[in-house]
Amino acid sequence: MLKLYIGNKNYSSWSMRPWVLMTQLGIPFDEVMVRFDSFGPESAFKATLAPITPVGNVPVLVDGDLAVWDTLAIVETLAESFPDQGVWPADRRQRARARSLCAEMHGGFGALRSACVMNIEASLPTAGALALRDQPGVRADLARIVSMWQELLAHHGGPMLFGAFSAVDAFYAPVVMRLRTYALPVPDDVRAYMDRVCATPGVKAWIDGALAEHDFVDFDEPYRVAP
Amino acid sequence: MLKLYIGNKNYSSWSMRPWVLMTQLGIPFDEVMVRFDSFGPESAFKATLAPITPVGNVPVLVDGDLAVWDTLAIVETLAESFPDQGVWPADRRQRARARSLCAEMHGGFGALRSACVMNIEASLPTAGALALRDQPGVRADLARIVSMWQELLAHHGGPMLFGAFSAVDAFYAPVVMRLRTYALPVPDDVRAYMDRVCATPGVKAWIDGALAEHDFVDFDEPYRVAP
Repeated sequence: MLKLYIGNKNYSSWSMRPWVLMTQLGIPFDEVMVRFDSFGPESAFKATLAPITPVGNVPVLVDGDLAVWDTLAIVETLAESFPDQGVWPADRRQRARARSLCAEMHGGFGALRSACVMNIEASLPTAGALALRDQPGVRADLARIVSMWQELLAHHGGPMLFGAFSAVDAFYAPVVMRLRTYALPVPDDVRAYMDRVCATPGVKAWIDGALAEHDFVDFDEPYRVAP
Repeated sequence: MLKLYIGNKNYSSWSMRPWVLMTQLGIPFDEVMVRFDSFGPESAFKATLAPITPVGNVPVLVDGDLAVWDTLAIVETLAESFPDQGVWPADRRQRARARSLCAEMHGGFGALRSACVMNIEASLPTAGALALRDQPGVRADLARIVSMWQELLAHHGGPMLFGAFSAVDAFYAPVVMRLRTYALPVPDDVRAYMDRVCATPGVKAWIDGALAEHDFVDFDEPYRVAP
């Protein structure tokens, strides 16, 4: 059985992507949760991951003695191992576009990611409004997200970005979480897509897991103090 | 014919990766150079790319009316279109590892990348020594690079990281350029690999192109003034 090492569901946006993808597409795996802590060299987090991956981060997909780290490599490996599960769109051109969009997420949106860290159980509309008011990068990231999603939804007719749920929806699911937590303004069609994503069983299962954690990691909580 | 839009060869590390890969593996393409400028909304750079890609960056691979942006998506699309050219290692496990390493490069090594921007024709040993002395992140990035390469060279016996030249060598080729420009200290086996990379015809052709440019882009030159 495949094993997927993940971090806290409330905070770990990179873990969310393959977990949601595998869950939603029915690819069986065992989840191994490695709780976020200080990430210091002596931390339990690093000690757990050291024998498994050279980079000491989550997520890691483990298949026997093969470890695949980094979300994009995990997704490509799953696409190879489960060619009929629809990880990528079936059409070659759409698949190239889907890969472009996931790689864009993988390396980009730095302003949005640092101003609006994923925090599923929180509601931080003031932090969101301030980020939007003061940071041109956040405004540019939001505008790109909105135009990307609108174009894809119009082109494919929904319900997901490429019609059926694929790696692209999984890659942008943490962005959906951020838009909600920070109450960033979006047009109605984008809002409707976000609602559909959250109602998708694989995403809903992750959100439910996040809400059940009741953990608090201070460096992932720049806008709140411990309850 | 495929078209590959790239930036200045001296500076554009992301452009270097697919250009070197395609050249070295004999995948034919036409190069379209888009010179780096201010990158402002009215710039020639952005105006050239706006009709082609929604992200306004290089590299972009164009196949008829299909645009693939972002290096990792380009590499995966090439691997699909040219399955016999050895873009990835042929073995499934090695391929998963290769993808992990490319994704690690794609999203990581931020300290090294920002302290030691690619500048092929320059020699900046003092900047390198200061970065290494003052920035723990640069030291950690260098240590990871050295251990990664040593392990792969020992495991596969060279000459390249997975035996034959693959996307992994192309992805780390700009790191080789940085280690040289900034004279960062590496063990002999790593130095020998770097020399082999630079002598590879695809890499050598890129370096020769960079040396012939004689361009100067100030924001890519944090350690020098215009000649």
